[in-house]
Amino acid sequence: MTLQRIEHRAMHGGWQDVHEHASSSLGCTMRFAVYLPPQAATQKLPVLYWLSGLTCTEQNFITKAGAQRYAAEHGVILVAPDTSPRGDDVADADGYDLGKGAGFYVNATQAPWAAHYRMYDYLVDELPALIEANFPVTDARGISGHSMGGHGALTIALKNPGRYRSVSAFSPIVAPSQVPWGEKAFGAYLGDDREAWKQYDAVELIRNASERLPLLVDQGDADEFLQTQLKPTLLQAAADAAGHPLTLRLQPGYDHSYYFIASFIGEHIAHHAKALTT
Amino acid sequence: MTLQRIEHRAMHGGWQDVHEHASSSLGCTMRFAVYLPPQAATQKLPVLYWLSGLTCTEQNFITKAGAQRYAAEHGVILVAPDTSPRGDDVADADGYDLGKGAGFYVNATQAPWAAHYRMYDYLVDELPALIEANFPVTDARGISGHSMGGHGALTIALKNPGRYRSVSAFSPIVAPSQVPWGEKAFGAYLGDDREAWKQYDAVELIRNASERLPLLVDQGDADEFLQTQLKPTLLQAAADAAGHPLTLRLQPGYDHSYYFIASFIGEHIAHHAKALTT
Repeated sequence: MTLQRIEHRAMHGGWQDVHEHASSSLGCTMRFAVYLPPQAATQKLPVLYWLSGLTCTEQNFITKAGAQRYAAEHGVILVAPDTSPRGDDVADADGYDLGKGAGFYVNATQAPWAAHYRMYDYLVDELPALIEANFPVTDARGISGHSMGGHGALTIALKNPGRYRSVSAFSPIVAPSQVPWGEKAFGAYLGDDREAWKQYDAVELIRNASERLPLLVDQGDADEFLQTQLKPTLLQAAADAAGHPLTLRLQPGYDHSYYFIASFIGEHIAHHAKALTT
Repeated sequence: MTLQRIEHRAMHGGWQDVHEHASSSLGCTMRFAVYLPPQAATQKLPVLYWLSGLTCTEQNFITKAGAQRYAAEHGVILVAPDTSPRGDDVADADGYDLGKGAGFYVNATQAPWAAHYRMYDYLVDELPALIEANFPVTDARGISGHSMGGHGALTIALKNPGRYRSVSAFSPIVAPSQVPWGEKAFGAYLGDDREAWKQYDAVELIRNASERLPLLVDQGDADEFLQTQLKPTLLQAAADAAGHPLTLRLQPGYDHSYYFIASFIGEHIAHHAKALTT
């Protein structure tokens, strides 16, 4: 697995880099961003994985969230992958919510998606192995994300007990099986049998989670997708029923944008750093 | 002068807004961004004007610099205008360094530019009047910017003694009369007579500045335009010769991007806040 560094920019005393590599799980060339804080020059550090939302690439988080300042403060490496397989050979669809830029962090089982859309395997196995082989990291991992990426962070953490020490999400899709974005994507990637959807649905997974990893979720109350696509009260009800620790904060006035993420990413990174460095 | 608010987003306890208005000095519809920190809900605050670089609109600074966090911390309003007149009636040129997105903060005197390209008047007179009539601001003003906008900040501050209490710049074009970007733009906007260029050239203006306002300039030493377009040593020499206070910091490893700005904008806003609130 060879990495090619295609961006290398000084930032907050460390380096904001972007790498390209051939992905075996996705069968295409992929890019991911990695922020190495100044401490990475001399020691191994924990890693926080960030999963982005619909339409995003590895660029959105690193240019708009302002996370690097806090990562430098706490000594945490940030890794931000792309949101789907890429390239001319990869199936796509009209619309921003299916196909490229909309991988939904699942392993697709249906044609034409199954050939490349295996973002779950990429995120859980291939990318961490790549990071751990090529960067000065400890085995302490956290995971976070926004919207579709918040769904990815919650489901991947819930499905892999012991693998992540901390998890958080901004404006996550908590119940993809019950909202239009999820129904469209899961119907295409996983087929019509809704039983198969449950393995990638946080509200379903939380019922039987074997590890009670605390969830931190921030949600803006002026989010244009709050009532139709996000429905955080479904997560609250499921967590309450299961006795799963959840801190759900409804932030007054905030919308679905990166202005919201930038406003609270410092608190999320502090939350992860506390779990990752103790 | 009627403002239409076209974006309104909660951020760091305040509001990141964008307004549109008919500009009398430019003869077209213009947009500017304004960040109102939480303190603006109850008191008047000083204003820091930010001038962006080539190709930018009012969006780049507000999405990429991470400045709002520091503005909220210090209680400073941020105003980020566009970089040129806009619209189908406005003359343009091939290339990113002349015409739309490249106003260079001058009043053009040559056809076809003179009809709309009066960014100097817009920045010095029209926009501050608009801000002071519509937002809770004191008369304490600072000015900063990046690259072409760093040139704008330095020249506007030097040309208007008493108007700004603080000035700073990132990677500024300090001697437009002596570098390719400036020669192309000034030749088009101001004509072939290089005497006319001196009124918009920081290295020329510093010689006879009637007010010795201290200049804070940050410059990355890995900036791809350092040797060809920026040449900060020319500013250092002119400041030394004139006895003008200049803090020029060469930042090792940093390039020309917003990753550089984001890394040091906190120090610049602290610098301005100190001058603006005491």
